[in-house]
Amino acid sequence: MDPAQARIWLTTAFEEARTGLAEGGIPIGAALYGADGTLLGRGRNRRVQDGDPSLHAETAAFRASGRQRSYRGTTMVTTLSPCWYCSGLVRQFGISRVVIGEATTFRGGLDWLARHGVEIVLLDDPEIIELMRAFVTERPELWREDIGDREE
Amino acid sequence: MDPAQARIWLTTAFEEARTGLAEGGIPIGAALYGADGTLLGRGRNRRVQDGDPSLHAETAAFRASGRQRSYRGTTMVTTLSPCWYCSGLVRQFGISRVVIGEATTFRGGLDWLARHGVEIVLLDDPEIIELMRAFVTERPELWREDIGDREE
Repeated sequence: MDPAQARIWLTTAFEEARTGLAEGGIPIGAALYGADGTLLGRGRNRRVQDGDPSLHAETAAFRASGRQRSYRGTTMVTTLSPCWYCSGLVRQFGISRVVIGEATTFRGGLDWLARHGVEIVLLDDPEIIELMRAFVTERPELWREDIGDREE
Repeated sequence: MDPAQARIWLTTAFEEARTGLAEGGIPIGAALYGADGTLLGRGRNRRVQDGDPSLHAETAAFRASGRQRSYRGTTMVTTLSPCWYCSGLVRQFGISRVVIGEATTFRGGLDWLARHGVEIVLLDDPEIIELMRAFVTERPELWREDIGDREE
């Protein structure tokens, strides 16, 4: 896709991430765009705000989009590369494309999705990298809780 | 694990599935059990009831369990083999074991999870197979919507 369009869509996800940060939450945001470019839904990680571990940014945006008969041609835009949970969502529902703000802090299932035919647009946005870097440094326990990271 | 214990836990998920069916929903239920055997949360698919495509049975049970620091030793019990979305949930959060009512109607990510070190207990429960078979026959469009199945 056109990188300029991807960057415009990324601003929606980034707004969600910043709102989450302002709420004391985990600063990851997402938005799902339809095949025709309309915004279907947007959301942010709500672990802290709602005490709900099931709402990662991507699943929150998916939820906000309501029931859809097909996800063909849709684009999931997310500030951070999707974890296995959110990568599984993308694959199961046949979301066609994922626009990713950054994959430096967390690599996630990006390569797995690409191997399974999902178009990946990685934008390496320096502001988002900095946002995540600061968050992971300041709140390491919260970050690790959110990705199920454990010492083993 | 002890198959008799697995069957006892499966009844919790099966109750959820039947409640979902009685509500006009998709009859899939799940429950998350802690390492010490306590019930952390239970839930059912809520696509129809809440118009929420993000709540598969497993994610509903995960949500109902609230925030957890670690999922080590936990068991996800589900009437139907987990799709990629729910398999990704299990892998990301390090849920140790999945007890599955049936994998005949839908195979899902069972083998992928096993390859990644998740203990799989497949019970092949005839009542659950029959419940799913009847549902898929009676409501094929709803079933296909729930797993993102598309013709391509």
